[in-house]
Amino acid sequence: MQKFDSSTMDFEERVEIDDFESEVMERIYSKPLLIKRVNTTSQIAIVGANVCPVESLDYEVPENELVNEDWRSRRTVQIFQYILLKWAFALIIGLSTGLVGIFNNIAVENIAGFKLLLTTELMLKHKYYKAFAAYAGCNLGLATSAAALCAFIAPAAAGSGIPEVKAYLNGVDAYSILAPSTLFVKVNVIGIVSQYLRRFLSPVIYYLFVLLIYWFTLYAYLITYKTILGQQGNLRCSCIASLIGQGGSRKYHLTWRWLRYFKNDRDRRDLITCGAAAGVAAAFRAPVGGVLFALEEAASWWRSALLWRTFFTTAVVAIVLRGFIQLCSTGTCGLFGQGGLIMYDISAAKVVYSTPDILAVILLGVIGGILGSLYNYLVDKVLRTYSIINERGAAVKILLVIMISLLTSICSYGLPWLATCIPCPADASTSCPNTDVSGNYKSFQCPPGHYNDLASLFLNTNDDAIRNLLSTNTVKEFHISSLLIFFVAVYCLGIITYGIAIPSGLFIPVILAGSCYGRLVGRLFEPISKLDVGLFSLLGAASFLGGTMRMTVSLCVILLELTNDLLMLPLVMLVLLISKTMGDMFNKGVYDQIVKLKGLPYMEAHPDPYMKHLIARDVVTGPLITFSGVEKVGNILLALKNTGHNGFPVIDEPPFSDAPELCGLVLRSQLLVLLKGKAFSKDRVLAGNKVLRKISELDFAKAGSGKGLKLEDLDIQEEEWDMYVDLHPIANTSPYTVVETMSLAKAAVLFRELGLRHMCVVPKSQGRPPIVGILTRHDFQPEHILGLYPHVRFQQ
Amino acid sequence: MQKFDSSTMDFEERVEIDDFESEVMERIYSKPLLIKRVNTTSQIAIVGANVCPVESLDYEVPENELVNEDWRSRRTVQIFQYILLKWAFALIIGLSTGLVGIFNNIAVENIAGFKLLLTTELMLKHKYYKAFAAYAGCNLGLATSAAALCAFIAPAAAGSGIPEVKAYLNGVDAYSILAPSTLFVKVNVIGIVSQYLRRFLSPVIYYLFVLLIYWFTLYAYLITYKTILGQQGNLRCSCIASLIGQGGSRKYHLTWRWLRYFKNDRDRRDLITCGAAAGVAAAFRAPVGGVLFALEEAASWWRSALLWRTFFTTAVVAIVLRGFIQLCSTGTCGLFGQGGLIMYDISAAKVVYSTPDILAVILLGVIGGILGSLYNYLVDKVLRTYSIINERGAAVKILLVIMISLLTSICSYGLPWLATCIPCPADASTSCPNTDVSGNYKSFQCPPGHYNDLASLFLNTNDDAIRNLLSTNTVKEFHISSLLIFFVAVYCLGIITYGIAIPSGLFIPVILAGSCYGRLVGRLFEPISKLDVGLFSLLGAASFLGGTMRMTVSLCVILLELTNDLLMLPLVMLVLLISKTMGDMFNKGVYDQIVKLKGLPYMEAHPDPYMKHLIARDVVTGPLITFSGVEKVGNILLALKNTGHNGFPVIDEPPFSDAPELCGLVLRSQLLVLLKGKAFSKDRVLAGNKVLRKISELDFAKAGSGKGLKLEDLDIQEEEWDMYVDLHPIANTSPYTVVETMSLAKAAVLFRELGLRHMCVVPKSQGRPPIVGILTRHDFQPEHILGLYPHVRFQQ
Repeated sequence: MQKFDSSTMDFEERVEIDDFESEVMERIYSKPLLIKRVNTTSQIAIVGANVCPVESLDYEVPENELVNEDWRSRRTVQIFQYILLKWAFALIIGLSTGLVGIFNNIAVENIAGFKLLLTTELMLKHKYYKAFAAYAGCNLGLATSAAALCAFIAPAAAGSGIPEVKAYLNGVDAYSILAPSTLFVKVNVIGIVSQYLRRFLSPVIYYLFVLLIYWFTLYAYLITYKTILGQQGNLRCSCIASLIGQGGSRKYHLTWRWLRYFKNDRDRRDLITCGAAAGVAAAFRAPVGGVLFALEEAASWWRSALLWRTFFTTAVVAIVLRGFIQLCSTGTCGLFGQGGLIMYDISAAKVVYSTPDILAVILLGVIGGILGSLYNYLVDKVLRTYSIINERGAAVKILLVIMISLLTSICSYGLPWLATCIPCPADASTSCPNTDVSGNYKSFQCPPGHYNDLASLFLNTNDDAIRNLLSTNTVKEFHISSLLIFFVAVYCLGIITYGIAIPSGLFIPVILAGSCYGRLVGRLFEPISKLDVGLFSLLGAASFLGGTMRMTVSLCVILLELTNDLLMLPLVMLVLLISKTMGDMFNKGVYDQIVKLKGLPYMEAHPDPYMKHLIARDVVTGPLITFSGVEKVGNILLALKNTGHNGFPVIDEPPFSDAPELCGLVLRSQLLVLLKGKAFSKDRVLAGNKVLRKISELDFAKAGSGKGLKLEDLDIQEEEWDMYVDLHPIANTSPYTVVETMSLAKAAVLFRELGLRHMCVVPKSQGRPPIVGILTRHDFQPEHILGLYPHVRFQQ
Repeated sequence: MQKFDSSTMDFEERVEIDDFESEVMERIYSKPLLIKRVNTTSQIAIVGANVCPVESLDYEVPENELVNEDWRSRRTVQIFQYILLKWAFALIIGLSTGLVGIFNNIAVENIAGFKLLLTTELMLKHKYYKAFAAYAGCNLGLATSAAALCAFIAPAAAGSGIPEVKAYLNGVDAYSILAPSTLFVKVNVIGIVSQYLRRFLSPVIYYLFVLLIYWFTLYAYLITYKTILGQQGNLRCSCIASLIGQGGSRKYHLTWRWLRYFKNDRDRRDLITCGAAAGVAAAFRAPVGGVLFALEEAASWWRSALLWRTFFTTAVVAIVLRGFIQLCSTGTCGLFGQGGLIMYDISAAKVVYSTPDILAVILLGVIGGILGSLYNYLVDKVLRTYSIINERGAAVKILLVIMISLLTSICSYGLPWLATCIPCPADASTSCPNTDVSGNYKSFQCPPGHYNDLASLFLNTNDDAIRNLLSTNTVKEFHISSLLIFFVAVYCLGIITYGIAIPSGLFIPVILAGSCYGRLVGRLFEPISKLDVGLFSLLGAASFLGGTMRMTVSLCVILLELTNDLLMLPLVMLVLLISKTMGDMFNKGVYDQIVKLKGLPYMEAHPDPYMKHLIARDVVTGPLITFSGVEKVGNILLALKNTGHNGFPVIDEPPFSDAPELCGLVLRSQLLVLLKGKAFSKDRVLAGNKVLRKISELDFAKAGSGKGLKLEDLDIQEEEWDMYVDLHPIANTSPYTVVETMSLAKAAVLFRELGLRHMCVVPKSQGRPPIVGILTRHDFQPEHILGLYPHVRFQQ
């Protein structure tokens, strides 16, 4: 154990530590997937070439004089304000997510509608090349602009956002995803609002427009919301910074007292959970499904109170959506039509099934699960490739987007030529061929009275395509060959589109591919099964979702709310269970894979089996830096400068205690605030109330990711280096500890269940230094453990 | 700290401890709601006069040589078997719950139908007194027999069962509820299967018959199920007992190897969670609602894997129910009709609402919430009264049931006379008046062409009454005065029926009262609101449920699945949120109240605010009994005999270690097994492998509640008292510990999140004995803390 002593520290020793540490690090992290701790305030996870700095979150409630003082000073009125504010924020999130959802949808429907109308018109005039040019041009222009925005302004906006939110709720803050670069990114990630935005077939059509709408409609929302989340922090951060700069002007911060309680990771976590639920609720118009999604997939911890608040948020979303849809149904929203807020009506189909149907459904589930896990596998491979391509700079990123966009356009426009024209059915409920934006029967190149079934799928918005596939009582509408072509195209395009520099997601592509697969299976089983192909289509979507995302209850409820048909429930449940089971045999869920790929140190709910064979002491590595209860300023500065540690144990020694004892744990961020406050003294004595007078708990309110105080912000004079500072008031006096001989598995459970950032390992026997080491989430990562003990992997 | 030393223990000292303990106890528990720890293996909670022995459950995974040895010996095949078995049990629970649900329902419908037909027939012949005699006689006979069964055979079968399951899943095993007295109790409680059984209007009609059906159809199920849960344990317990008796015959237990992994509290908890979900799923034909119910209300801890298994269970239930309902729809189930597996169709009503509707709904929610919390308050008062009455013996219990039954009969039969006869509507879809079992228009005493609206509600099964109240497009069917009378009667009868010695629940009475209330409000708001009264009725039911049970998401989904109408969702959510908020202002949810009333030491998710002002050391009371690593048999026997402790710290002392150090924690049950195994030695030395050869982990498999080894079962000879036994192999070497200065609030979070039974408090400074005390869930109870520190209650 290396310890900064009060007097003997000099330059040579510092270098030595550095060398030792980097050597240790090298020994530990000699694996392909590198996780390195290098720079001062954060750990860097390197995956392929995606550099992604991460920081753990503090969910633990610290206990020290400052917090106690603060707690005593809270009056009932403030606590009431705090609770009220929580609900107010839930309301704001709900309202704004609902508004984003609906405006977004109106924009998308109108832009996509415009593009399709233009193309259809040119087709009708037999100007096929012009039509393609218009179609591909629209796609290309919008895709490029979206990619440019994404590449230059907000690189982290690319992708689904769900893995990052999942990691955040697990306790890992990947700076980039919540970086203050653009408002766009925030809307994108925080609420998974734009979950809904992400389709791939015409994926990039509307981002520019949507951005503008975002900007205007959500300005008020963002000011409040992101302020709380502390990402932009234009209001709050500057405020707090000025406060700290003034050495704690109480007068000023009184105005903001009602907000300061939210400047901590726990409340942010709650808000983000609500946001995740609201996003899914808005995307699928499925309020209960949204809550369950947040519960089953996103959140790592859960409390009943949060369930209730999340439910409130999604209820608000549902009410907003409903209000606007009623408004739009009067035709005031342009080409809005039925809206992309997908709601599929399959209630026309009779749900009566017998044994052959069940067998068909089981087979569908098995194959769907396998195809789903294959999808995961391929997405993983593609992402790894893209991460290498994307590192070459913004221009290459955009080029990639252009190529994918062109490929999509060619497929969408070219493949329908392979289909033969089908005579319109006599009993068609809608006009056939129709020239509307949406609808079943696209004429494409066909003569009057005929339609092109493949064009009905390709040259449509995704929502309409899904609606067509799920339509009941239209068994013969799509040829088996057309379905097969569409399925293969959609499956492949979905895989290669995810991961390019546009904010595209996974839900809609998977549903699209799945429902096509289901309809295909339905057609094949037509001779023996009496179930409607529309129902098969729904079950196919369920099987794909189960096979890729591996959720059960939330998907089930989302599908239920999408289709509004409870009688399907037993079959949907069956398919989801089968496909999830099949998928789990091969690999992990797609979001877990992406979290892994991004190198985010995610804590699994269950420790790996080999952890049973190790004890906590085994994985403690590197030099432990501890401070005395009253420590020299210079030592602290050196420690902060030369290590990347975020937590330092504080040890009381004589004369402050009879024997060395663990007094607490102090965080880097707290030390920085303390040093900034300059509550120093010339002698090595307890500071008593002096610190409390200079700094209040408010000063420790956590700024947004990467927005906190930095070492460079400090202005410590030469003569202050030899002064002392009392760490007792700020140290967390009761960090959670484990005995060194506790098995790693059990320690991991403790770490995960309580959402810790640091866990102190204490010696079993007396008479030794009071702390053996500190465990962080990195120490529980398989890469770390198996780097130290490669042989242990194969033990059961 | 009082310690059993290896040599100085004698009789006087033992008495001293006893005295000291009882004195401490008296000091602590001088409160009206007493929680006493007295007898040897369990604590007794005394509430009013309901003596209810409880024991905490062990969810912690111990770590010691035995477990490690056991883990090493598990082969992959066995782990696979274990997983397969988990799913097999989930399947069995699902199948059997579904079967119970359906058979039960068929029986109920037939019996109730018979009774109603008899009464109606006599009414038609104007034999009014005879009709009443038949009606009341049927009720009385069945009620008395049910009460007799309940009073004499299974006292714990009375009541809802949900509070007990909730407590069990929180870690408290109230012996009586899972006692092996009857199979009936088990079916009743484990699965909350008979949740469904419990109505109050004609509550007791069918228990005898149902019991018979239970008995026969579920025999196979119970043998497997309860064996695993270890309550009856006729197979397993005897098996294990014989094994231990034989000193560990490996040959015999190989047969049972695949079952032994389930003999622990963790797996039992999982099974019971599945059972709770399955019960609700069967009662309301709401599989997703069942899962959410288990998640929101019942379970205290939750894991994603369990979500999935629970979901599987309810899926099986849903499929079984569906299959049988299809079968019954052909008319093979007698008077089954639409079945009591309630499914209400309100889709005929148009859900379009405007501002006045919303305002009406908000008002409905507010009043519903208040009435719901009043319901809770009254139920609490009534239960306290009944607990005093019921203690006077079985005869008084039965007398109470008879009185309530008569009162119910009088109300049901007498009140309809107050209603005026209404002419049949011209456009009635069903025959009016009808003489069917169910249906809207009961003739009662009315002349032909007229019907009695109150009789349509009173003289019906609850399911049909609810169905009538929820019916849409029948605004004028019920008079406002009739609705008022029915509401008051149902509200009051519901309150006084819960708590008598029959297995009656809360769900159906609350829904009935709520839907009547909603319809009443709907009629009153008719001039300004355009919503259908059927929808108002549903919202009324939601408001009552929210006001009493205080669940949100699960109730919402259950109502969704009951009514099969997603368009109502936003309104239902709104009402639930409002009524829950209103209710929370006044008191706790009804199940929480009952848990409290029963004196079960339930660990709340959030510690009370005053716990912030106390530290862990403050609440450690009573003498701490510790053992040496190698302890004298006599000392262990004395400690087991003279204290009620269930966990004892083991302390290593020289020569086994350099200084006294905490070696682990050993449980009473483990000590008993160890002593039974007689791995003693004459000298004070480590036993090494000797113990492992005599006892295996299997021997520690936990028997069912109250079924484990008892001190009296041991047969220790006089000369063995001075021998030594090595506790190292069985002690849990890494119990979770907290420093004595940790705040009680933080310790409570740790205790609750990890589901602990014992938590060791260790000293902060070195040089002191290595353990300060042990905290159990009793130490976190407000009664205990506020008994020690009454002043602390008022600190914020």
